Amino acid sequence: MPEMRILTESDLRTLVPLDLAAVDAIEAAFAALATKQVAMPPILRLDIPEHRGEVDVKTAYVPGLSGFAIKISPGFFDNPKLGLPSVNGMMVLFASRTGLVEALLLDNGYLTDVRTAAAGAVAARHLARADARTAAILGAGVQARLQLRALMLVRPIAEARIWARDPHKAEAAAAALSAELSIPVAAVSDARTAVTGADIVVTTTPSEEPILEAGWLAPGQHVTAMGSDAEHKNEVDPALVTRADLYVADSLPQTRRLGELHHAIAAGLVTTDRAFAELGEIVCGRAPGRADPNGLTFCDLTGTGVQDTAIATLALARAVETNAGTPFTS
Amino acid sequence: MPEMRILTESDLRTLVPLDLAAVDAIEAAFAALATKQVAMPPILRLDIPEHRGEVDVKTAYVPGLSGFAIKISPGFFDNPKLGLPSVNGMMVLFASRTGLVEALLLDNGYLTDVRTAAAGAVAARHLARADARTAAILGAGVQARLQLRALMLVRPIAEARIWARDPHKAEAAAAALSAELSIPVAAVSDARTAVTGADIVVTTTPSEEPILEAGWLAPGQHVTAMGSDAEHKNEVDPALVTRADLYVADSLPQTRRLGELHHAIAAGLVTTDRAFAELGEIVCGRAPGRADPNGLTFCDLTGTGVQDTAIATLALARAVETNAGTPFTS
Repeated sequence: MPEMRILTESDLRTLVPLDLAAVDAIEAAFAALATKQVAMPPILRLDIPEHRGEVDVKTAYVPGLSGFAIKISPGFFDNPKLGLPSVNGMMVLFASRTGLVEALLLDNGYLTDVRTAAAGAVAARHLARADARTAAILGAGVQARLQLRALMLVRPIAEARIWARDPHKAEAAAAALSAELSIPVAAVSDARTAVTGADIVVTTTPSEEPILEAGWLAPGQHVTAMGSDAEHKNEVDPALVTRADLYVADSLPQTRRLGELHHAIAAGLVTTDRAFAELGEIVCGRAPGRADPNGLTFCDLTGTGVQDTAIATLALARAVETNAGTPFTS
Repeated sequence: MPEMRILTESDLRTLVPLDLAAVDAIEAAFAALATKQVAMPPILRLDIPEHRGEVDVKTAYVPGLSGFAIKISPGFFDNPKLGLPSVNGMMVLFASRTGLVEALLLDNGYLTDVRTAAAGAVAARHLARADARTAAILGAGVQARLQLRALMLVRPIAEARIWARDPHKAEAAAAALSAELSIPVAAVSDARTAVTGADIVVTTTPSEEPILEAGWLAPGQHVTAMGSDAEHKNEVDPALVTRADLYVADSLPQTRRLGELHHAIAAGLVTTDRAFAELGEIVCGRAPGRADPNGLTFCDLTGTGVQDTAIATLALARAVETNAGTPFTS
């Protein structure tokens, strides 16, 4: 009769805020990916075109962690017409030693939001200039908000600009973020203007064609692209992969298939087998991060199973500490 | 705030017994695989060698069914030393239209047992002689018992033989099955003797080398092999694929990679692209089943996501009818 713990979105919002501890947990996960015998199989993907639905299943086993997560992320893009959110999902955390279910994390995608934003902070911590004070966020959704909050945990961000295809959304997001973060956040109607002079640029959209041109960027800037988690998505001009002084992948096998790198390979700008550093190698010092204040750096985030396992493990540890959630015996 | 239903193993044992309705649901799933635009991605597999663990994730979307299941099946082979079962698992049933979680089926592998045994019944219904009365079961585990029960639902089985590597296990299983099924079930110490003269032979072991020789078989017999669900597993002499008058796959892409067919291909007996019928094509009349009482037929079952989706859908429908399980709001 296995006993497990069920944690709801509301439990998890309390247990796992986007804070430095979450960033550190995700940073440690990237380091493990670079240094340990992590098992991270390719993403399982199910498409349901009649309902504009897609489901991704991700997992990773990290030696030394007591559990491993399997995350199921459905995205159903007609849901807003039904008054429902497009993106949902849950994670199941299993004991590494026995494979027994330890926890059901019914987060409706919340933990993915946190671990994705935390990866943006890890990228900025190792790749953005230490004095980075201006952020440009392209996109105005949940990740736009969280990526800006995440940057503020690791860099002295004092002002921000938001651009989105829909200027009304950019204005609403800028107003909300100014209030929430107590820094000036301006909506900017032109993406190039938003980007120019920013120290850190983060793209946070599901775009299928570039919204950020390589030619807009200047020495000293850092770019994180976090929207491309599928072959057809593409936020950044593929030329940036070669134009940047340093291109960094969250997982090179994944960015070759799904990320911005995939489009640079498809465009013939880069060979399929060209080696690039992974974020975890930089975290643990096996590869150099930003070397020069005038370098242009580019981090390509597709989302990895190690992040899911790390955030789920953190969530359960905190739930056990505080006896949160609902015990359930099957 | 999505509302879902949580069903435990105990709920599911009551709701979904191994009966003709379960067999019919699985038969319909195979027919759908042959006739509909089923989406069934390759199995996601995670290996954890330090703990002799492996996890398979299967899914399938069947147009017309209200839900699709994602099944997570961990097998951790040191668990018995800890007093725990090797095989566990659960399914999550999602709404096909919205991707919202409809039910958590905390079955500890029970529904997999039922859908696997039901596939054996579907194979026998279409491939074994209508007058089949003697069954030989190789193996003495849970599937040995369930496969025999499943055969009795579709064929007039009046006696059975059980062989297992460990004769004590064969004897214990034979005694239990005689009592449970009210037919004579004999433990046989030699596999060839068990098989000789049986109308239906079912292999139900995790063997990595053949336990059934092709030369032992005779005209009129039907063989179902259900143990090979991974590359390294192999219960049946690969020569049976060509020696049989009719070889049938549950899913040809899967049996080419994981099933007994895989070993016949590896042995050079069959080309990789040779076409064979799938069970669903036979179910729906697009391919011939048993044509001749003297034919030798062979069905290769690796386990498919459509079976999981079908049995999970059946479980939820019955839970809704009887208001079983625990409602849960995340």
